[in-house]
Parts: sequence; structure tokens; C-alpha cells
Amino acid sequence: MTPASECTRRATTLREALVARGLEGALVLQAVDVLWLSGQRQNAALWVPAEGEPVLLVRKSLERARADSPLARVLPFPPSRELAGLVGQARRLGLTLDVVPVAVQQFWTRALPGVEWTDVSMLVRELRSVKSPWELERMRHTSRLLSAVLREVPSFLHPELREVDLAAEVEVRMRRAGNEGSPRVRAFNQEFFMGLALAGGSAAAPSYFDGPVTGRGLSASSPLGASVDRIGRDVPVLLDYTASLAGYVTDMTRIAVCGTLVPSLRRAFDVARSIQDEVAAGLVPGALPSKLFELATARATAAGLGDCFMGPPGAQARFVGHGIGLELDEVPVLAPGFDAPLQAGMTIAVEPKFVFPGQGVVGIENTFAVTERGGQRFTDLGDDLIVAG
Amino acid sequence: MTPASECTRRATTLREALVARGLEGALVLQAVDVLWLSGQRQNAALWVPAEGEPVLLVRKSLERARADSPLARVLPFPPSRELAGLVGQARRLGLTLDVVPVAVQQFWTRALPGVEWTDVSMLVRELRSVKSPWELERMRHTSRLLSAVLREVPSFLHPELREVDLAAEVEVRMRRAGNEGSPRVRAFNQEFFMGLALAGGSAAAPSYFDGPVTGRGLSASSPLGASVDRIGRDVPVLLDYTASLAGYVTDMTRIAVCGTLVPSLRRAFDVARSIQDEVAAGLVPGALPSKLFELATARATAAGLGDCFMGPPGAQARFVGHGIGLELDEVPVLAPGFDAPLQAGMTIAVEPKFVFPGQGVVGIENTFAVTERGGQRFTDLGDDLIVAG
Repeated sequence: MTPASECTRRATTLREALVARGLEGALVLQAVDVLWLSGQRQNAALWVPAEGEPVLLVRKSLERARADSPLARVLPFPPSRELAGLVGQARRLGLTLDVVPVAVQQFWTRALPGVEWTDVSMLVRELRSVKSPWELERMRHTSRLLSAVLREVPSFLHPELREVDLAAEVEVRMRRAGNEGSPRVRAFNQEFFMGLALAGGSAAAPSYFDGPVTGRGLSASSPLGASVDRIGRDVPVLLDYTASLAGYVTDMTRIAVCGTLVPSLRRAFDVARSIQDEVAAGLVPGALPSKLFELATARATAAGLGDCFMGPPGAQARFVGHGIGLELDEVPVLAPGFDAPLQAGMTIAVEPKFVFPGQGVVGIENTFAVTERGGQRFTDLGDDLIVAG
Repeated sequence: MTPASECTRRATTLREALVARGLEGALVLQAVDVLWLSGQRQNAALWVPAEGEPVLLVRKSLERARADSPLARVLPFPPSRELAGLVGQARRLGLTLDVVPVAVQQFWTRALPGVEWTDVSMLVRELRSVKSPWELERMRHTSRLLSAVLREVPSFLHPELREVDLAAEVEVRMRRAGNEGSPRVRAFNQEFFMGLALAGGSAAAPSYFDGPVTGRGLSASSPLGASVDRIGRDVPVLLDYTASLAGYVTDMTRIAVCGTLVPSLRRAFDVARSIQDEVAAGLVPGALPSKLFELATARATAAGLGDCFMGPPGAQARFVGHGIGLELDEVPVLAPGFDAPLQAGMTIAVEPKFVFPGQGVVGIENTFAVTERGGQRFTDLGDDLIVAG
């Protein structure tokens, strides 16, 4: 169970931020935001008054919510006509408009006549981005699971496997180790199924996902991740996987090969590692995410690899790392426009990658915590190329 | 690739429905709705004018969208200031407010000043609920995959397995057979990871999911599906799994046991099968979903099992089947309030289940198409109890 002190600390930071913006409270509706503040994930809404205790209103299951949450006030979801009494005189309320559907907002507007909604999406995401020592320990657990599975890759990687068979081998080991499922993704219309197991040119195929690599997938309906292509020899095999444990997600990428990589790809792999190490060293409080992105692109360009950094030429993603925690796509992003200084306890997946159309993808990814001594790495598997049969 | 005739037919039904409601067009934004109309799933918006051809506006990847979609007009997503030109004089537009986040609606309201939005969620969901022969064939393919995996259960079910190990065995076989991942779920804050592998009392634990059974899951953050409990002997083992192939989802449940079931559970299992068969026989055009639910509850009550039908006493779900297709939670639902007559080509998962706290869950589930001769079953595995070592 999430300690009561964790939930208290989180609600306190939210209340202070609401007061600073002249808001009288927030209605927290999205399941992951509710989880962050209440320690549980039932079908529930959380009322956070600027003054006073949060109230968790549970549609299903009240019994499970009471067992899982350390909050004092866990109540059955009342009839709509009683909701106005809950918020009393408060009229200026926060809502995370990035994720709440219009119809859900309309329900609450009918229930709370006269309320004026203010978007607190970025406020909530920024508060969530700074992890407590308890949360950092959770992410360390998740990373151990993920590292342990990827450590086994040489035992099952084989050039005759199809990408989807390789994915199955990774996924079944993750599941047996207690992986909870796919990582939660916040952005509208984005989705991600556990990870990417991709080989050669297949890894460089373009698709919808907001990352450097997506994969061809199994159909036009699911154009992400493994395809039925065979892995083959002497091509880079990308293993970009997430794990989720107690809700906390970590993300890592390793490159494997059955045989050897051609020297140009081998060199790009080494450049990616050195960019990762330099960016990671810069993950200190006060550093600017946008500057770390500039540093990474400058290093890629200096190595003559600017054209294929973070995507194929002409379709490059403009970031080199992303916040991660209860969701895969947290803030801050190491990208242009992210000019708020890093804070200790932020957790960031750093993932420099080079995409060579027709040849494949090389790169590296690990999840780090921002500390005074630079990025502290969660994942405990070395970054070397994985060489298999 | 989805045939052009499919996309033309779907867009025509939508345009006719828009005109009937006095709307001049619809902006289709949610990825699954876009997939239904365009045959592809990139990051894209679809403009469907009441008169004229749909226009797919693609953020990423234009190349892949053009490869996957049979639509004639597949264009790069333009700068915001050019969007108004796209819709011309149209002002009364439809939007699916059940899934579109407030911030996304705000973006489009800024881009299209003066537009008045009408909720077309239920309209789109109802159109999608009636499948063409081509779509029914896709669902038959998905069902074959799912049936083939569940047919193998006796080869790996064992009382010493933990629920999560059993889940891993099912999931790895699904993946190797080409399963694309978790089914898409439309409802806000609902999520589902492939399926449920649950044993004994663990299966009867309450949680958030809008179904009769959820499972304890692996943590307070992920209270759905398999736990680390051992399966054990002489208890019902619930295998409630979905598969997804070319985007189309099917759903089935079988009950297994290592040993034997006590007579009371065995009898309830037989009652569930007979309820399923009777409801399935009633899946004809013109039948009312609400009446099929009444029929099912009446039969459960007559068998003395009304208290534990579709949930534990006091927390029973109020449905006996749900529409299914590109999403797990489609309409119609066989539930009170669904009084529109069934139409040929609707696809429905019928899942009568009995939940006995402390003992477990028994029941059955198959996916059917509505036809003049009653529900035509996709899943081709018998309904018998699966008995294993």
C-alpha cells in the first residue's frame, strides 16, 4: 500500500499550487492522477479542496478502494444532485482538460452549476514529475525486472525468429516476473503495447507513435511494434521495452545482433552511447531540458549523423528523452520549448537513437533520476551490444 | 488493406446519418473511429463533409497512411490557420464528445471559429455496431486464433501455477499466433490487458472493471487480471480472453479445473451454458437487447442463482452481453435501457457468469453475429468444462 505520508505530501503540493493560481479546489478524474493522489486505481473521482482533506468518491469497487487507499475519506459515489454539496461555495475549480472527455466535463458542469473550470493539466503533470524517495525505490524495482529480462536475450535470440516471436519471448518472461501489462500513456490517441522487438530495416519504418522508432506492426490497424519479418543475421535488433510494477514504468533499449554489425552502424551505436552518457551527466537540478536536447543534437551533427538522429531523414522526432513514472509520456521532455529547470527527483528516459532507412536502428536507452551528481541510473544492465548466435 | 468499397459504405452511412440530424459534416478524431472510416490507424483527423469525399489529415506518418488507406484524399495535416478553409461554410458539425478531450475540442474550436458542435458519439457507435460481411470474416479470423489458443489449455494448466504464470502461458501463445495486443477500450478510465486468468475465490474479488469479473491483479495500481495466487485443485479456473487481429476483437470465456468442481458450481456452470444458448438463439434482427437481459436474469432467478448472476451479491453488473468489434466495449449492450431492436450483422459477446464469493466464478462466453437464424457463433471451441491434471 502507498504510505499515507506519500498521499498527504502529494495532496499538499497540489493544494499549494491550486491556491497559488487562485483556485478553490480541483476535481481529479483521470485514473492515473487519482492513483497518484489516493494510492489506488478504482473507478473513482477525487475532490481536492484547496483547504481540507481530499474526498475519494468511488463508483466501483468501494471495498477494494478502502483496502488499497490510505486516505481517510473514501465514500460511495453519491447521486448527482448531492455533488454540489460536496464542493460547497467553491466555484473556481481545476480540471485536467488534456485527458478529460468533453462529455465527462459536461456531466460535472451539470452537477456543479456555476463552476468555472481552469485547465490544471500541466500543473498536475509537473507535480507528478518530481518523485519522492519512495517512488524512486518503486522505479528501481521496475528497472530490476526489466534489466533481468533483457539480460536473458542471448539465451533466446535467434536469426530465424520472426520479430513477433522475439517479442513473445521477451513478453512472457516479463509477465512471469510480475509485469503488470502495458505502460499507461496519457496523450490522446497514443498507445503502446509493452515494447518493440524490431530488426533491420523493419525498425526504421515510419508510423504514428511519438517516438524515434515505431515498427511496422502486424496490420494497418496496429502499425506499432513487431511484424512477422524474420530477424536475420548481421542487422541491428532493437529491443525497446517498458515494464510496469506497482504502477511505475521504466523504459530501456538495447541493441542485439546475430553476427556482427557493419562498421557504420557500430560507430553510430557508440556515438549514441556517448551522447547518452553526456546527457545523463547533465541531469542535475537547474539544468534546462531544451539545452540537453541541443547538446545531443550538436553531438550527433558533429559525428556526421545529424540527418538520422531520432528518426529517418525528414521525419525526425525532436526530443532525446522523456519524463516517465506512472505514465510512459510524462514531463519534462528533453526537447525544444522545455525551458523549466530540472528538479531533483525527476525521472527521465534518455534514448538517443539513429535511424537508417533500409538498414535499421541503433541506440541506447536507460531511465535515470535527476540528482546533484547527475543522472542516477535505475537500469542495471550494461549498455554493450548484445551478441547472440 | 481494407477494401475501398468498405470505406465508401461506412462514410455513406455516416453522411446519411449526419444529414438526417441537420449536420453539415463531422470531424472524426478518435483513432478507432478514424480507423473504421479510413482503414488505417495513423495520427490523423478525418473530415467527413455531409456532401463530398472524406479528407484524411495526417500528422504522422503520411507515408504509412497512404500505404494503408484506400481513401483518395490523404493529405498532410495543414497549419491550423488553413483548417477553416477545409470545412468552408459548414458550421453545424458532429464530434464524438464521449472520447474527445476538452483540450482537443478547444483546439478545433479555435481553428474553426463559429462552429457549433453536436455530440455524435452514439450515432458513430451505432453505425459501427453493424458489421459488413467483410468485417464478420475478420472477426471469424480473430476467433479462430483465440479458440486455437484456449484449445491448448489442458497442455499447460497445472495446480501449482500462479494465476500470472497461467496468464503468461495463454498470452505467449496468443502473441506467437499473431495477436496484436490488448483490445481497445472506449470508455473513459477503463483498460483491459488481453484477458483474465483467475482461480477460485480470487476470481470473485471486486474491482473497477465494468464486467462481472475483474480479478485481484498484481497491485493496487493494477487491480485487474491475474494475481500471484496459486491456482490449486478442485476450484473453477476462469479464462476470459480477448484476441485482436486486423483491429477486430473477439472475446471468449472457458472454465477449467484441475480435478473436479463441487456439484453446486458444476450446476451453475450448466445453467450459464443454457442461458447463453437461449440468449444466443434470440440474437435475431428485431429482438430487444433489454428483453434478452430480462430473459437471462429470469432464468438465473428461476435456477435459484439470481443473487450471484453477473457479480457477487450486492455488486452485480446489469448486463449479460456486449457489442464488440474494433473496440471491446461496443454497443449494443444486452442490458436495461437498450431498447433499439437488434440488426443483422451486429456482433455481441454473450457472457452469463455466476460469482460465488470465496469459491470462484463459473460461466461461459462466446462472440456471435446477429442473423435471421439466431446468433451465429464465431468461436469454434466447444463449451465443455476443461479438465486438466
